[in-house]
Amino acid sequence: MNVLVINAGSSSLKYQLFNMDNKAVLAKGLCERIGIDGRLTHTNPNKEEKYKADVPMKDHADAIRAVINILIDKEWGVIESMSEIDAVGHRVVHGGEYFADSVLINDEVIKAIEACVPLAPLHNTANLIGISACKDVMGENIPQVAVFDTAFHQTMPPEHYMYALPYEYYEKYKIRRYGFHGTSHKYVSQQASEMLGIPIENLRLVTCHLGNGSSIAAIKGGKSMDTSMGFTPLAGLPMGTRAGNIDPAIISFLCDHEHKEADEIIDILNKKSGMLGISGVSSDFRDLDTAIEEGNPRAKLAKDMFNLSVKKIIGSYIAEMGGVDAIVFTAGVGENDRSVRWDVCEHMEYLGIKIDPEKNKFRGRQMDISIDYARVRVLVIPTNEELVIAEDTERLVNEAK
Amino acid sequence: MNVLVINAGSSSLKYQLFNMDNKAVLAKGLCERIGIDGRLTHTNPNKEEKYKADVPMKDHADAIRAVINILIDKEWGVIESMSEIDAVGHRVVHGGEYFADSVLINDEVIKAIEACVPLAPLHNTANLIGISACKDVMGENIPQVAVFDTAFHQTMPPEHYMYALPYEYYEKYKIRRYGFHGTSHKYVSQQASEMLGIPIENLRLVTCHLGNGSSIAAIKGGKSMDTSMGFTPLAGLPMGTRAGNIDPAIISFLCDHEHKEADEIIDILNKKSGMLGISGVSSDFRDLDTAIEEGNPRAKLAKDMFNLSVKKIIGSYIAEMGGVDAIVFTAGVGENDRSVRWDVCEHMEYLGIKIDPEKNKFRGRQMDISIDYARVRVLVIPTNEELVIAEDTERLVNEAK
Repeated sequence: MNVLVINAGSSSLKYQLFNMDNKAVLAKGLCERIGIDGRLTHTNPNKEEKYKADVPMKDHADAIRAVINILIDKEWGVIESMSEIDAVGHRVVHGGEYFADSVLINDEVIKAIEACVPLAPLHNTANLIGISACKDVMGENIPQVAVFDTAFHQTMPPEHYMYALPYEYYEKYKIRRYGFHGTSHKYVSQQASEMLGIPIENLRLVTCHLGNGSSIAAIKGGKSMDTSMGFTPLAGLPMGTRAGNIDPAIISFLCDHEHKEADEIIDILNKKSGMLGISGVSSDFRDLDTAIEEGNPRAKLAKDMFNLSVKKIIGSYIAEMGGVDAIVFTAGVGENDRSVRWDVCEHMEYLGIKIDPEKNKFRGRQMDISIDYARVRVLVIPTNEELVIAEDTERLVNEAK
Repeated sequence: MNVLVINAGSSSLKYQLFNMDNKAVLAKGLCERIGIDGRLTHTNPNKEEKYKADVPMKDHADAIRAVINILIDKEWGVIESMSEIDAVGHRVVHGGEYFADSVLINDEVIKAIEACVPLAPLHNTANLIGISACKDVMGENIPQVAVFDTAFHQTMPPEHYMYALPYEYYEKYKIRRYGFHGTSHKYVSQQASEMLGIPIENLRLVTCHLGNGSSIAAIKGGKSMDTSMGFTPLAGLPMGTRAGNIDPAIISFLCDHEHKEADEIIDILNKKSGMLGISGVSSDFRDLDTAIEEGNPRAKLAKDMFNLSVKKIIGSYIAEMGGVDAIVFTAGVGENDRSVRWDVCEHMEYLGIKIDPEKNKFRGRQMDISIDYARVRVLVIPTNEELVIAEDTERLVNEAK
């Protein structure tokens, strides 16, 4: 089965085509500037070069057409015709309380995703446009599956997902912690179980998805118990440009003193805070490292704050699980930034956590970086959200047959 | 030396008169409804009854006069004349970055406390009125000392006190984590050192001040390293009526959907959230217990959320200190609510924490409630912020002589 995985943003669309017989990526790429002018970048793994071209895309349907055209292109393509695409899997950001698993898309599912738009206005709207565009271009009969960022965390118990707000806000608006990056946390937790040779039912894991957006999850017996993002992806750790948790009273203080509305302050908290806000240099951890080498104290402060926040959340999740068997690092920063892994795990010998500095030197490779006799294993596991989306799509399409 | 300790609120004023030779409380009481009509409640420990009377108090100076009058009263008083009061110690909520210790009040100190008014408008204004009222009534020559809720936490390093906001907000407005309840955290950490017979320089403590307002501190070598309240006392744990940490994006969501301004939402987060908001029953833990016994699921949820939050913060502070020697419970809930202590410390054997259920039955008494062989001690220590204020006042007055 060939599965096309789609991740639609408001003006962009990422795709990967999988052959599920061997789980190979046949091709992948990115449409940008949708609705503006349109640009396509396409990678065929059999070619050394990437295909890059300006392709007019007035909407997401145009973008999907461009994707199909390049996939069946004589020179750059990997399939003969659109009929070789057996199913489409969509990343959908917010499934609210409706979806605890991926789902085959039908009219009812569309309505539920629409009902979650207030919870993630930009993301869910874009995801719905992506689904609709695929239906328009590829026809009614191609099975489409929605894979939600929030679904994996739906196993959290109420004392973990509720906020201490007037209860009516939960009843009226479904304000609660949802958590995101669920596909990634699920994938690396399953990989960790395989690496350790221990059934996931018997494992207590803390999975650290550290990238430009970052979240951590407490996973007990394969189920998400807690996660650091909240009602929105702003909460939790400080991130590239996001503030993470702050004293909520700061928002009204800033409204008063900066003469701004709350949504303008939240915009600053989303886009101009985090590593960028503190360092004044960049949201990118590699740029921070360069600035730190040059002696920039605010870049150092930003990274120290990030590492400390990761360490504190790991400590809190171990406390709520009553112990831990392994810590997993994944995503751009988690897979590649050895100084983050080192600083986070330093002075955690009291828990049985100790990284081997030699093993920690590797980047982006699946491995156990603990010293040999450490009681708690520290693992680096490259994430692969697209593969999970493709696998869930294959599973649901086969189940429906 | 007799020291009068004053805790002035916007329409109330608490007082205690200490004889510092034996640290005895000679008398204590409360003025209420200042600026409205005025009510005085006074306790002389030698009498069985309390003195309660309506006493007109048009302002705080009237309240101070009422306090002096009852202290020198023939029947209810404990001193002959005002001249037997040697010094006054004031609780001041916010010392900003100006004060890392208590201080003898002079014009410069008043100016600095005024400069902190934007950081705690209601509290610091009331505290300043209390100081000014004492000067008016008792004269220029009586030494007055300010003891700050924030001072003890001024030892926090920047990566612990900074928020991941644009750095300019720290420079312009001094937005950072300050922390509160410092007098209490300092007192119980020193008591813990005495109880354990270990110099405080060698101790890593997590002190849990759990009351109607709650905060937790990480204290390493006698210095506060971290604390759960933030820029304001709203942050951190869910409390009686306060929400604690939430996803900041919830505020703009609620502004939009409830058609309210940010400061109105923050008011709800301060006054109608926390245990009250979740349970719909009460902000008082004793009322929650009654409701839980009656089978109220939301009261149970509220208390579970509180206990879980305490546990998570303890775990995070242990992680940042690289281990812990003792956990201290204090204040109304911490001293008296054994189910909170039990639930918080349950399943923490992996850290060497284990409470003895028999020892845990006691209320409001200084004691070690751990099982005998536990590696980490769990202590209950009744707090005494007024005594610390009196001691600091005596120390500073003696130093100035």
